[in-house]
Amino acid sequence: MKEHNLYNIDKAVPVPLYYQIKQSILAAIQEGQLKGGDMLPTELDFCVNCGISRPTIRQALSELVTEGYLYRLKGKGTFVAQPKIDARFLNKLQSFNQEMTQKGLVPSTQVLSVQTIEGKSSINKLLNIPAGEKLLYLERVRYTDGEPIVYLETYLPNTLLGGLAQEDFTHKSLYSLLEEKYNLRVEKVQREIEAVNATTHVAGLLEISKGKAICLVTTVAYAGDMMPVEYSVARYRGDRNKFSVELYR
Amino acid sequence: MKEHNLYNIDKAVPVPLYYQIKQSILAAIQEGQLKGGDMLPTELDFCVNCGISRPTIRQALSELVTEGYLYRLKGKGTFVAQPKIDARFLNKLQSFNQEMTQKGLVPSTQVLSVQTIEGKSSINKLLNIPAGEKLLYLERVRYTDGEPIVYLETYLPNTLLGGLAQEDFTHKSLYSLLEEKYNLRVEKVQREIEAVNATTHVAGLLEISKGKAICLVTTVAYAGDMMPVEYSVARYRGDRNKFSVELYR
Repeated sequence: MKEHNLYNIDKAVPVPLYYQIKQSILAAIQEGQLKGGDMLPTELDFCVNCGISRPTIRQALSELVTEGYLYRLKGKGTFVAQPKIDARFLNKLQSFNQEMTQKGLVPSTQVLSVQTIEGKSSINKLLNIPAGEKLLYLERVRYTDGEPIVYLETYLPNTLLGGLAQEDFTHKSLYSLLEEKYNLRVEKVQREIEAVNATTHVAGLLEISKGKAICLVTTVAYAGDMMPVEYSVARYRGDRNKFSVELYR
Repeated sequence: MKEHNLYNIDKAVPVPLYYQIKQSILAAIQEGQLKGGDMLPTELDFCVNCGISRPTIRQALSELVTEGYLYRLKGKGTFVAQPKIDARFLNKLQSFNQEMTQKGLVPSTQVLSVQTIEGKSSINKLLNIPAGEKLLYLERVRYTDGEPIVYLETYLPNTLLGGLAQEDFTHKSLYSLLEEKYNLRVEKVQREIEAVNATTHVAGLLEISKGKAICLVTTVAYAGDMMPVEYSVARYRGDRNKFSVELYR
């Protein structure tokens, strides 16, 4: 038994037809009738069953593609996107590996570079170290189930933490290394979240098209309440991530 | 005295020149040497002063435009974007008007529509009301200093709160009306944040180009801990907003 008729539109109401179709497809996704990976009926199916024109169904589908609910495979059809990973990291301080494992996803990490670089005045200021001090720069892409999720650039004070350059970041998380090797426990983080369009470089690393929306999250992590030990810039694929938070008055 | 030489690049290091220029411009912005609204030197200035080619400076500038640090005005030049409004609403429960006023910005609201609509199964479920119950639908654009910042769609249970259709949302906030008229105090909100690309419709309302990154924030607000009274979808311009949060272990 179908809970929801995908083709159920009402030409009598003053709501644009493309919008009605769009809401109908969204409802089918939200109610679980259409699941991630399912193929949608063809444009022709919609035209015939709803009595609408090709441009109308095209507008509905392309808005849903733009908004990330659907994706197209050339020559194959239009499919329902996988639901976004709902990260709790705005609510709770835990590592990427912990969080993904709890969700039943298999995390992995590719280390692109680990190098000592010249200080950058804005970053050194955030880390509370002299402008001339070098930084340890770490560049990683993190995957779940083999799909790139986030491109992560990490800056650490080199005088204090330069020894980390020798560590295996493919299998170990930064925060556990800070605890094991330096007895530094991250107790507080300050995060900022923005939406930006992916540059060609970032799009390539995350296997998305240039211009796609990404969540840019910058973090300053403190050992105790006061001592900054890490500055990072994380770029999350917008189509695969969302972040949730609970607030009380 | 200049703190930072915008043209200071080093051809000896193995870092692409476009990237060096990009970092140099970013540093000047972060250090406050270049401020929102400032015009950048011309492409030719960069070519001559850095000894680089036109495509190189173009790549640097267009990435900074894509990332929202710069914007172009046709026939005029390239300018530094205004810094993003740093909203604390992930950390603290307060109204848009309160928050903007505290920042010294002048908030205003345009009400696009207030109407009773048919229930939507996914929204009625979140609001914990029967599937057939109608919703009060409220559509607003909020501005600071005359510039559109967020497009807000709000859904309220119509049986309980339908009387709000008569209220003046141009000057009153929803949460203060809930307290005054219904003695309902919002005590808890659940928020989800995603990055999406703007559709033509949303781009028009926010006065940005189609495809620009926007922060989509959905909220379920509860009176007390348990009774859902509001579901809303807010679309914030990515180029004008960022959200910050502090977390403790």
